[in-house]
Amino acid sequence: MNIRRAEGNPIVVPSDVVPSSPAMEVIGVFNAGVARLGEEIILLLRVAERPIQQEKDSCLIPLYDPEKGETVLRSIPFGPENDFSDPRVIRTPGQIYLTSLSHLRVARSRDGLRFDIDKSPSIYPATSYETFGIEDPRITMLEDGYYIACTGVSPRGVVVPLLFTEDFRSFRRIGNIFHPDNKDVVLFPEKIGGKYYALHRPSGSHFAKPDIWIAESNDLLTWGNHRYLMGVREEEWDGGRIGASAVPIRTDRGWLELYHGADRDNRYCLGAVLLDLEEPWRVLARCRKPFLEPEEPFETEGFFGNVVFSCGALEEDGIVKIYYGAGDTSMGYAETTLESVLQSLQ
Amino acid sequence: MNIRRAEGNPIVVPSDVVPSSPAMEVIGVFNAGVARLGEEIILLLRVAERPIQQEKDSCLIPLYDPEKGETVLRSIPFGPENDFSDPRVIRTPGQIYLTSLSHLRVARSRDGLRFDIDKSPSIYPATSYETFGIEDPRITMLEDGYYIACTGVSPRGVVVPLLFTEDFRSFRRIGNIFHPDNKDVVLFPEKIGGKYYALHRPSGSHFAKPDIWIAESNDLLTWGNHRYLMGVREEEWDGGRIGASAVPIRTDRGWLELYHGADRDNRYCLGAVLLDLEEPWRVLARCRKPFLEPEEPFETEGFFGNVVFSCGALEEDGIVKIYYGAGDTSMGYAETTLESVLQSLQ
Repeated sequence: MNIRRAEGNPIVVPSDVVPSSPAMEVIGVFNAGVARLGEEIILLLRVAERPIQQEKDSCLIPLYDPEKGETVLRSIPFGPENDFSDPRVIRTPGQIYLTSLSHLRVARSRDGLRFDIDKSPSIYPATSYETFGIEDPRITMLEDGYYIACTGVSPRGVVVPLLFTEDFRSFRRIGNIFHPDNKDVVLFPEKIGGKYYALHRPSGSHFAKPDIWIAESNDLLTWGNHRYLMGVREEEWDGGRIGASAVPIRTDRGWLELYHGADRDNRYCLGAVLLDLEEPWRVLARCRKPFLEPEEPFETEGFFGNVVFSCGALEEDGIVKIYYGAGDTSMGYAETTLESVLQSLQ
Repeated sequence: MNIRRAEGNPIVVPSDVVPSSPAMEVIGVFNAGVARLGEEIILLLRVAERPIQQEKDSCLIPLYDPEKGETVLRSIPFGPENDFSDPRVIRTPGQIYLTSLSHLRVARSRDGLRFDIDKSPSIYPATSYETFGIEDPRITMLEDGYYIACTGVSPRGVVVPLLFTEDFRSFRRIGNIFHPDNKDVVLFPEKIGGKYYALHRPSGSHFAKPDIWIAESNDLLTWGNHRYLMGVREEEWDGGRIGASAVPIRTDRGWLELYHGADRDNRYCLGAVLLDLEEPWRVLARCRKPFLEPEEPFETEGFFGNVVFSCGALEEDGIVKIYYGAGDTSMGYAETTLESVLQSLQ
């Protein structure tokens, strides 16, 4: 499949982003949701920050405190009782913590490549479901505005807060639309047979793998009739876990969904699947191979390397414009044609 | 707290139940949902069956095959690669299996103690979400009939199918109302502020404990606005996991919820909690100690001993009539007064 990366990749890097406070440093800007707003392309960037470290024998981690309404720092000793082997998390005997705290930040562009990034957080953790951060937004434009499905992480588990905006300046929280653990939620961009639909990815099941499910709704807040949509493929590039990435694109052959898959070594790639237009719980065709794999240094290296992970793509005039997080560190851009993606599924 | 067990306990035992086929034996009849239907008390019993074993070097397990529409038997070798240490499950390298398959069976009684049990299954696994069985029903009477929230188990995870009946003779499947893994779902018996509410118990979270959550709905099929309700209490009788047991009982002081808790040794007891009448996501009072613990031999012994586990209680004329599974083997009955339970929460 013919896919072309931007020459200026990565298009957004951590040093482009002003930290939310002098105590913090930005270590990643990635996994942005994307939307068109008039003449502009909006990225809703995930900005991961960690405290500027001050101690030798312990690690400072950030926690949002919903009662104080602010982020506090906690010190976790570098002792044998605590596991620091994964750069993203610290496992202590009683609790897992994240080493960074993510918020969401708006960036605006006319050409889709050079972005003006807001100087302060657009959506910062604000509830007891987001004390470890708010991550990986997917933006769906519906009749009345933009709905943003995020990942909220806390000791209560991984939930899916839904937010609403008309202008990407003020945001309203609607509620948690999926219970722990769930993430990678994308809402379809229109009703189908009178109902809203969403793809979601439950995880942590004692019996099941991290597969993709589909649910329906009448009001966007309450979701049900949960059905299994598609699973991981053992021994393949998407054998470890899969999840929806971009908002489904309507084509005359079906809903085109760009999804991510990781193998057992946590190497994340992007693939595609085609769902029935009228009955989106039916898979019509699925790629054999990924169309985007971590190959460039900014994709294979970074805070958590060997990752290309998209939270949004735009289809405009037959061109699929893919924004993607690379190495949990920066934002990349690539484009291809709708026809080319569809052909790869035959 | 003053609680009185029935003298004839256990009131239903496996030998009372006719197997669903000559190839199967009933090893447990427990965790029944309960409802009043006119002059009768209905139990919707969980009936666990396993194949009559025929081989020495392997274990036969039952699986519902949704394509064939029947239960098939599979042979799992007694080899070192398979873990048989828990009598309820077999862990193989690629998949966990259950050693028994559960269905639901109606039993009817005039006095609430002596039950006539239907000779064949009332609700048998029927979908790809129930290939390992359908378990632990909770019955809520609403305006138009009885809604039954069950546990569906399969390689797709643990989900919550909702069914409907008017007469406990014919049943209609509505759909899965919670995604994997979730169980212990009880619907409140009336709308509150114009919405339906349910307690539920997500599990398998990488970050969280098996705690009780609350969700709301307009249509009983789609649920959202998920909120954390109450958590396990480390080192206490309910420190390992908790879940709603009976349908909440309306009192003038609040919604009385009888819930189960297990400690880290999987000893299951019953406790109580009081929720706000108008805002049921608010906990008003919670028991310190359980009101029912496994003490009698039929509770401390059995297929999985040291378990009292209720899926339903009726409050009639100030008496709380508690039906409970004992040792994952049989049904027990105990009663107390509403006043006595409420006093224990002060």
